[in-house]
Parts: sequence; C-alpha cells; structure tokens
Amino acid sequence: MKKQTLRIIPLGGAGEMGRNMTVYEYENQLLVVDAGLMFPENDMLGVDYIIPDLDFLIKRKDKISGIVITHGHEDHIGAIRHVLEAIQAPIYATPLTRGLLEVKLARNGLLQKTELHTVEAGKIVEIGPFQVEFFHVCHSIPDGVGLGIQTPAGLIVHTGDYKFDQTPVDNWPTDYAKLAEFSRRGTLAIVGDSTNAVEAGWTPSEQVITSAFEQVFSEAKGRVIIASFASLISRMQQVANTAIKYQRKLSFIGTSMVDNAKMARALGYLDIPDSLLVTNDQALKMPKDQVVLMCTGTQGEPNSILGRLSTDRHRQLSVEPGDTIVLSSKAIPGNEEMVYRTINRLIQRGANVIYEALAPVHVSGHASQEEIKLMLTLVKPKYVVPLHGEIRQQKMHARIAQQVGTPPENIALVDNGQVIEFQNGEMNLGEKFPIEYVFVDGSSVGDVSTDIVRERELLAKDGILIINLVIDSATHELAKEPQIISRGFMLSEEADEVLSQASQRIIDAVSRSNGNLEKAVVKSVRTYLYSEIRRSPMIFVTANEI
Amino acid sequence: MKKQTLRIIPLGGAGEMGRNMTVYEYENQLLVVDAGLMFPENDMLGVDYIIPDLDFLIKRKDKISGIVITHGHEDHIGAIRHVLEAIQAPIYATPLTRGLLEVKLARNGLLQKTELHTVEAGKIVEIGPFQVEFFHVCHSIPDGVGLGIQTPAGLIVHTGDYKFDQTPVDNWPTDYAKLAEFSRRGTLAIVGDSTNAVEAGWTPSEQVITSAFEQVFSEAKGRVIIASFASLISRMQQVANTAIKYQRKLSFIGTSMVDNAKMARALGYLDIPDSLLVTNDQALKMPKDQVVLMCTGTQGEPNSILGRLSTDRHRQLSVEPGDTIVLSSKAIPGNEEMVYRTINRLIQRGANVIYEALAPVHVSGHASQEEIKLMLTLVKPKYVVPLHGEIRQQKMHARIAQQVGTPPENIALVDNGQVIEFQNGEMNLGEKFPIEYVFVDGSSVGDVSTDIVRERELLAKDGILIINLVIDSATHELAKEPQIISRGFMLSEEADEVLSQASQRIIDAVSRSNGNLEKAVVKSVRTYLYSEIRRSPMIFVTANEI
Repeated sequence: MKKQTLRIIPLGGAGEMGRNMTVYEYENQLLVVDAGLMFPENDMLGVDYIIPDLDFLIKRKDKISGIVITHGHEDHIGAIRHVLEAIQAPIYATPLTRGLLEVKLARNGLLQKTELHTVEAGKIVEIGPFQVEFFHVCHSIPDGVGLGIQTPAGLIVHTGDYKFDQTPVDNWPTDYAKLAEFSRRGTLAIVGDSTNAVEAGWTPSEQVITSAFEQVFSEAKGRVIIASFASLISRMQQVANTAIKYQRKLSFIGTSMVDNAKMARALGYLDIPDSLLVTNDQALKMPKDQVVLMCTGTQGEPNSILGRLSTDRHRQLSVEPGDTIVLSSKAIPGNEEMVYRTINRLIQRGANVIYEALAPVHVSGHASQEEIKLMLTLVKPKYVVPLHGEIRQQKMHARIAQQVGTPPENIALVDNGQVIEFQNGEMNLGEKFPIEYVFVDGSSVGDVSTDIVRERELLAKDGILIINLVIDSATHELAKEPQIISRGFMLSEEADEVLSQASQRIIDAVSRSNGNLEKAVVKSVRTYLYSEIRRSPMIFVTANEI
Repeated sequence: MKKQTLRIIPLGGAGEMGRNMTVYEYENQLLVVDAGLMFPENDMLGVDYIIPDLDFLIKRKDKISGIVITHGHEDHIGAIRHVLEAIQAPIYATPLTRGLLEVKLARNGLLQKTELHTVEAGKIVEIGPFQVEFFHVCHSIPDGVGLGIQTPAGLIVHTGDYKFDQTPVDNWPTDYAKLAEFSRRGTLAIVGDSTNAVEAGWTPSEQVITSAFEQVFSEAKGRVIIASFASLISRMQQVANTAIKYQRKLSFIGTSMVDNAKMARALGYLDIPDSLLVTNDQALKMPKDQVVLMCTGTQGEPNSILGRLSTDRHRQLSVEPGDTIVLSSKAIPGNEEMVYRTINRLIQRGANVIYEALAPVHVSGHASQEEIKLMLTLVKPKYVVPLHGEIRQQKMHARIAQQVGTPPENIALVDNGQVIEFQNGEMNLGEKFPIEYVFVDGSSVGDVSTDIVRERELLAKDGILIINLVIDSATHELAKEPQIISRGFMLSEEADEVLSQASQRIIDAVSRSNGNLEKAVVKSVRTYLYSEIRRSPMIFVTANEI
C-alpha cells in the first residue's frame, strides 16, 4: 500500500495560549484534536472570548472523521458549541471529559444532535484512517489523555496537556509504559505541550496542595472559602478530604461548580460522602469554624462569585473578618491586575487571603523542563513539533529538544495555519493557511474583527464628540447653534469652556467651507482640541439641510 | 516647650503601587516627601498616568516648608511638574536625584522657577520645624536616601525604597550605623517600604546581574541590545563594565537614556570612558559582534524603542537573526501581557531574547521579608506604618512587624488620606481625607474622572451607533430615512442586515412616539439589538425638526 502524506495543521494554540485545535490529515480525511477557547487580551475590548479559525474545517466539512477531546479544560473544549454549529462529526472523549462536554452541550441545546463516543485510556479506536491510541496523562483535571495517532505514514504522539506527577490526587500516574512502547514501535514525531517550557526543573505534585490546605484548615478560626476553577475536580477532592479531616462540612457555591461536582460524583471521579455536603443556606447558618465553601472566580472576573464577594455584591454571602479565603489557582497572564485587585478588596473586608505567592495552594498542571526532557527521552521521536504555547515557550521547548539530542532541522517551530507534512518518514513544512482571530462577542461569532476592536480602542482613548448641525439650504449657513454631545471626553464643568470654544470653530468652519462641510468641521475641531488639551476624541458630524 | 501633635498623611502610594507622596505635619507646617506618578491600570482607558491627589496640599499651600525627594524613579518624582504647578516650595534632593529632577523640570520650562537644594546622605537639614537627617539606602538607582525626621514629638524614620545589598554596584551599602543610631536615640515610628513584603528571604544583590550579563556577552555572536529603564543608572554602569570586558562599544538609543547617561556621567555617578561610547550611526556600521546597544521599552510600550523594534518601526535599527536582546527589567504588574507580546515578536524576528524568567538579568530594588525584619530590628521603632504598596503587601509588612515583636496595636495599616497622629509618644488614627485618582490625559489634569473612564469603557464595550433623524414638524413623521453611523460595532457586511432591521424599528418608534422621541428610539433599537445579537452598543440620537 502506497504511503500517503500525513499532515498536521494547527488551527489554534500555536504561538498563543488557548483555543487549542490541531488537525491531522491523511488520505483526504481529517481528525480534529480539541476545540478550545482563548480568553481575550486586555486590549481586545468588548470581546468575550476567541475561538479557533474554523475556515479550514468548514471548507472540508464532509471529510472530517472525528473530533477527539483530550481533557475537559475550557482551552480544549470551550469552543465545541461553535465547532458543532459549523461542522458535524462524532466526538471521542474519556468519561469525565464527556461528562463536562455534555454539561456544556446540554446548555446550548446541542446534546441530542451530537454523536458522542466514550473512550478509555489504554484503548485503540479507529477514526477514519487514523488508529488512535489513548494513553493516560496527569494534568490538573482527571481523565486527561494523550494520543498515539497511527497511520501508514507513521506514528505521531500528541501529548495533550500533561505533567509527570508521581503522586497524583487520583493515584493514576502518566502512562510511562505506553510512552516507552511508542519509542519501541518508533515514533515519527511528537506534538508536545510547551506551556511550562520556560520553567526549570519539575512541576511539583498536586499533593503539595494537600499539606498547604491542611495548614490553612488547622489555623483557620472562622469560615474557609476556597476559590478555584469549576473544572478542577481533583482540587474539589482535596478540599473534601481536608474538610473531613478537620471536621468541616463542604458547600459548593455557583452553578458551574455545583453541576460539575454532581457530574463528577455520579461518574465516580469525585469521592465525596453525602454526609459531607451541605447546601449554601445550611452552610451559612452553621458555626463558622465548621464549614468550608468552594466557589469560582480566581481570575478576578467582577461578576464571578469571588468577584462579587470582593465588592459585597453576593446575594447570600458577605465576607467578614475572620474568614480565610484561599485562591487555589494561578493568574492567567493578563489577569494579574484584576486578581490582585480582588485579593486587596477581600483583605480590606477583613479576610485572611492566601494565594500562590504565600503558600503552595496551587501547582501547575503542565510539564516543566525536566519533564519535557523525560517525555522526549521516553518517546524518542524523530521529529519534534512544540505546540500549545506562546512563541517564547515553543522556542524553549525546541531548545530543550536539542538538549536531549534532537537535531535542530528535525524541530518544527510553527505558527497557526502552518502545515507540517510527513512523507516517507521525512518532515517538511507545507503551505501556510491564513489564520484569523475569531472573536465571540455577545451571541455572534466572527463579525467583530481586529479592525472593529481597533475602532473600539479609538472610541475609548479620548472619548467621542457628536456634532449635530442644521444647515440652511439657501444660505449654506448654520440655521441654529451646533449641538455637541460628548461621552468619555472630560468632566462637564471643564468641558463647557472647551466645547464652547469648539462651537465657535465649528461656526467659523461652516461659514468658510465651500467643499466637504463635515470634513472641514472635523478638521477644525480636531486641530483646536489637540493644540489646546492634547486630546483626540473621535469626532462625528451629522449635518441636515433645511 | 509643649509638644504639638505630629501627623503623617499619605496622599499617594498607600494601598497602591506608585504616585508616592507622604506629608508630615507639625506645628501647622508641612513637609512633603516625594511626588511620584502611577501608571494606569488596564481598564483606565485613555489615561496617561495618575498623580497624587493634591487637594490637601493646595488648601494648605502657604504652610509647606519643603519637598524632599528620596530618589529619582518615576513613582517618586514623576508628578513633580504637577506639584510645582499647584504649590510652591523648595525641593531637597541628593545630587543624582536633583540631576534627574532638573532634566524633567527643564523639559517643562520649570527649572528657572524652582528652588532646588542639594543634600547629602549623612547630613541634617532644617526644613521648617523638621530636622531631616538623610541616610543612604541601596535601591535600583544610585543616591537614594531614607529620612530621619526629628521633631519634638519624636523621631520618625521614613525608609524610602530600599534593600540591604551587601555588594551594590556603586560599593555604597545602606547605612546600617545610622539605622542603629536611630534605635539608640529612640524611634517613635518607622514609615516603611512594603513593595516586596510578600517575597520570602533576601532580595539578591545587583551583582548577580553582572554574572548574567557576562554569560550573555560571552555567548552572543551578533549584536547585543539591552533594554532597561532610563533611570537605572547602575544598570548602565554594569553594561558599560561588561562591554569593556568583552571589547564591545556602547551606544545609548533614545532621548531619555542619552540625557540621563550624560547627566549621570557629568555628576560622576556613571564611570564610562569616552572611548567606550559610539553614536547610533557608528554602532550600526560596526561589526555586529563589537557593539552593544542600550535602550528603553521593557514594559512593552508600543511606541518605546523596544516596542518599535518588535514591530520593525524604528527609523534606524531593525532586529535581525543573530541579535541577542536582553530585557533587564521586571514587568510592572498589569504589563505582563504587553511585555510577553513584545518578547514573542522579537523572537519571531529571529532574536535570541533573554528575560527574567530565563536568566538573572534583573533583580528587585526592594527589601524582601528578611530585609524588612532587619530594618525593623536595627531601628527598633515603637510604631510601624507600612506604606508604599498594595494592601496585600502592607498587610504582610504588618505581619512581619509582628513576627519581630511589634504589638499588633502598634501597627497602622492605612489607606491614602488616613491621618496618623502622634502625641505624647502615642499613635492614634485621625481623620480621613477623601483621596481621588487624579488622571492625567493629554496636557490636562483632573478633568478625566473615574466616571469619564467608565464612559470610555462603555463606548469600547460594544461600540456606538449614532442615529440621525430629520422630523417633519408638521406631521411629526420622519422627513427622510434615518441615518445610522456605527463604530466598533460589527463588520459592515454583517452590520448591514442588522442595521436595516434597526432602521425599521426606528421608523416604527417614531411613528408610535407621542412623548420623548429620542428615548423611544434608543429603547426600541437597544431592545432589538440585545434580543437579536446580545450586544449593547451606546446609542445616540440627534433629531432635527424641519
């Protein structure tokens, strides 16, 4: 059988953090791995989130054999709704990941229409021309998998997000034996997680958090409130275990945490006795030293539970002196300011706030440099494709690969849309598809571009002026005083003087104008404002003739 | 002589990073310490920077004995222009700090009008009723001082920004002897730097950077470009020393760096032989392995030298493969995203980029926990006032003070505007003055409030629609089709359909309206857009009757 070309096309997650999606193509059939979202950067104003550019898939929608989801974090499953609205394909996931997908799909009325297959680590599933072998990896969520993707063109190991935790909370370490087996079978290429490639050494085990939690619980005299991500099922387990040890009852606050805990308990990924759990109402009536609450909001989102607690806008719960609040999380880059603002506000309300800088209440779920080396040494791939990270992290992953003996020419440092081709055991770069940011704003997708975001930036920079003119069509003079509306410009007392001067410039500009009236007005006002107060609000003119 | 009450009033820098300004009041006379600016947070749209709230000083402008500047960083001198425009008082500073002030004042035409006094560490100056004793402290800029402020009500030690560097670049350690002497004399209170109170251990010496630089220079095959702050004079010295050792010529790029280097050389704070320096033009013509360039832009500012290099918008210089670029700096909280974006872009241009996560090319200039303990143990103050930091850092400083034996009731955790009073050797909290953010935007100060910034946020969230209506005054019907202008809303193809639907709603609203026409139009369009696309642009209506 003649070997076809195997192609890898990253549609998201290369050169950026989040919206992970990698496509494998063989014999004109596609396998999609992951469908994540990405959180907007601080200057992507008004954008809710960003999803992979699906153009490539939409153009090949009848050639998609399946979608594999490696684990249940938002940066791997968050765009699934948009993907399923664009293309139809069966989804393959492990039980917990499937559970998290189902919660999400049910909310969007997509659950009934979607073909879902449960897979298990250690099993092989044929998806089109791809033999996909699922192997267990440790990460900061249970039931994560990496993929051995076998085609006649060779075996690709797709790591997914992983770390080598020797003492994971669920006692299920990364599958060393399978990785070694891939090496024996001969791995053509590895497609690896670069997130922590800049971190030296080994990422600590999730178990260090247990000790930190025990310290917190043993010292807390009042309520303990632990904030984390709703998908951090293992963190829920650790909180539950510590609550039992320190004889506190546990209560989850917020829909996503309650829903996920319920699902994970039903599937057996969360071992919490009924007797440990109390409702929010019960928790708030209990003695403060007998309760622990768990909620979301560790990124400082103003409308999350923790965000509302920090500004005392939660319906039921108010932070009080004596409360101990733990942020069991790390700030996603770009969120640091909001996170610290939330921490400061909680301290101001009298809480004792414990966060990553003060105690090991969080560890990363990603492999640091020594673990990346171990992965490469176990799998012994011929080629290395660092994905899942910013360029600086991919580059460091490439350097690490060189350190363990990969020749530089066998490493592909690629951006989204760059096709990597494998033929006769050789790797080459193929064509490069243009990949856009696809912004989701409100309920619609893709109608906000970087140009629109740039316009928003200009609106916000110095505010706006709207100048409304009524022109006498006979005399071409103003029929009444110009009306000026301003927003985000300056305080009204100070603006009065400036705008009355601007008004005079408008009157002059109209009387002098013998061409494009609106342009002349804008130019005159803009020049005046810049020379007077060094500001450039956006200026709009509406002119009506009577 | 009857002892009066001594008051401390933080006008900036308490509960926040930056815009440091502390006022001391005794016998109705004021001593102002520092006049810094603060960089805006990511959601303070369009704001250039923030200065202390000067209301308190303006109301007491004839009672100000003097302004002392502890060192030349922007968060301590950056607001000096605005302070001198509001109040008149002599300024006291050490030679280098004075030099940096003069560069700044000359740019704003204020140098001739300002009374400047040079002070020296180890000397005592009478400023009104205050005996101010200047003592040397190590920081990431030379010639920094702390203050022993003596009045009949007691001695206050104001640390300024400090660290205990045993091997500082300028061989001038913090004045331990003076601190011990303060303890012997009896210190009523210490007003201390909290910036690094959350960091365990000791801050490394500036000397570790020398080794890191030598490593970089020894490995670099092409040009070396080192980015840092323009006020980091000691970093310039380290670069110069390393350049000499590795036989490279040094060239400063950018006005602020060139000006500061020139001034620091003239004052003897920077020891660089003429033969080491070359112009930018000369540097660009030399063999690449014989030159090092030094520039600003480590915070990812798009228009800084480094920002322009990252997007290839610098007039003379382009980054090329083979260049080694060092960010000898730390991202100010909130700037992480922009800094990493700049690093990624520079890597994409082929540069080898070295930053704090990869090598010790920067160290903090602030005392970590063990140094704060040492300060407290040396000075033995009765009372501790942690300032200069966010609440979380002040709170940790308070905890450290307790660890070394300060009773909790002897620690004042205060916010800006909170008066701290000392009478008969006892500390009490006094009144609290309201302190505002004072935003500087363009050339004007204080006419942009948090409300205006909030308006800008709303403009940017979903963009704007301007609806221009011409109404027939006889029939109260529209005389022509509504005109709709949009910005930052959605892409025009997609907007066309939505806006034509909106237009129909406007026509209906006008024909139905029998009261406030504009309100009816806004409501109708807002309801339609939210139900249709879940977006809420700001809507403006201009209505003209004919």
